Amino acid sequence: MNSSFDRRAPTLDTTQPGIRHIQDLIRHTTPVRLLLSTGDSLEGILRWQDLRYLALCPGEDQPLTLINREAVVLIRSLL
Amino acid sequence: MNSSFDRRAPTLDTTQPGIRHIQDLIRHTTPVRLLLSTGDSLEGILRWQDLRYLALCPGEDQPLTLINREAVVLIRSLL
Amino acid sequence: MNSSFDRRAPTLDTTQPGIRHIQDLIRHTTPVRLLLSTGDSLEGILRWQDLRYLALCPGEDQPLTLINREAVVLIRSLL
Amino acid sequence: MNSSFDRRAPTLDTTQPGIRHIQDLIRHTTPVRLLLSTGDSLEGILRWQDLRYLALCPGEDQPLTLINREAVVLIRSLL
Amino acid sequence: MNSSFDRRAPTLDTTQPGIRHIQDLIRHTTPVRLLLSTGDSLEGILRWQDLRYLALCPGEDQPLTLINREAVVLIRSLL
Amino acid sequence: MNSSFDRRAPTLDTTQPGIRHIQDLIRHTTPVRLLLSTGDSLEGILRWQDLRYLALCPGEDQPLTLINREAVVLIRSLL
Repeated sequence: MNSSFDRRAPTLDTTQPGIRHIQDLIRHTTPVRLLLSTGDSLEGILRWQDLRYLALCPGEDQPLTLINREAVVLIRSLL
Repeated sequence: MNSSFDRRAPTLDTTQPGIRHIQDLIRHTTPVRLLLSTGDSLEGILRWQDLRYLALCPGEDQPLTLINREAVVLIRSLL
Repeated sequence: MNSSFDRRAPTLDTTQPGIRHIQDLIRHTTPVRLLLSTGDSLEGILRWQDLRYLALCPGEDQPLTLINREAVVLIRSLL
Repeated sequence: MNSSFDRRAPTLDTTQPGIRHIQDLIRHTTPVRLLLSTGDSLEGILRWQDLRYLALCPGEDQPLTLINREAVVLIRSLL
Repeated sequence: MNSSFDRRAPTLDTTQPGIRHIQDLIRHTTPVRLLLSTGDSLEGILRWQDLRYLALCPGEDQPLTLINREAVVLIRSLL
Repeated sequence: MNSSFDRRAPTLDTTQPGIRHIQDLIRHTTPVRLLLSTGDSLEGILRWQDLRYLALCPGEDQPLTLINREAVVLIRSLL
């Protein structure tokens, strides 16, 4: 039992301010700009986050872009 | 016994939305574009994922491309 | 009980000099310059840190910029 | 005893499809092209893999090139 | 009790030769050059190290530069 | 007791072929070329390795260069 617990991936720690800050951006559908490790920038609205990914909606009726969290250098509100 | 469990690599956590999103792209053979850490883009259809790699089929009758998950900056559906 | 503890993310280790140095920059609202992994530089005042992120205020009345700690190459006081 | 086990590095998890795919390339001495994180490409035949490295033979009578797995962005069969 | 230990960050392992080499550079106030992951070089005298950071004094009466260890590609004595 | 063991950094796993390959290069003082994550190349003779660093002697009477293992993309014998 214990070992199966240990092998499950940890969940997102929502007590961390950074995780909560992103949750707020998601809840308020705040337009954001992301700077990526490649130097590219992306704009859109964050839909959800999990341990490894952010999901960004780049515009209406467009499919989600799945973004590797570790490749996100910074997140800035556009408001 | 316990230590042998601990040493086994964890399996992919399919309760995470990002992992499930990729599973959906695989099941529906959705054409995708990947942005890589080198700045290169790749297009094709994802065939499977595991803890470390994504397998992409770049076109019919072409061999799989094995892609390091950590080098994938973002994944976008082309539909 | 034990396993639920194990799965919680560790907290920031404030006994580490580097973490304390950043806490001092935050407390004294010292203007800093950050060099990022993309080669970009950012200036502002650090507001808080957690395990994964630094929050930088780039100027008065501007929203916080959330910065991935691992993408921060160096931090320098501007005083 | 338990702690000495815990400190040993984990072995390569050969139940993972990506690891097995690489094992197949090794067994069949399939010529491959690797894209590296620097943007460089390498061609040759993979000889073995371990947790941290791939060993590539770039040509007959040439010494092995030891490649950091984490610096390998993708692997493609040349057949 | 045990779990609180487990959650504390590990301390710097001063039995490792690399860590000791850096400690020697610090003790002898040896001028060094660092190559960073961005390709930038920095010169100065190392003041301390911890798990995540190196502290570099770039010159007399200048504030410390806090450098992410993982962004340091190499360290070279200038003597 | 157990927790103090757990907190000690693991030692280099010399049963791994990659680690042993590097040990051989060290023992035979084989001249090598390293490709770094910045795209720079370094030549010299490896003196030792530990968990985090390789020590390279770039030439006679020159001080050791300490190289972050994770920043080493590949290692090639020059013989």
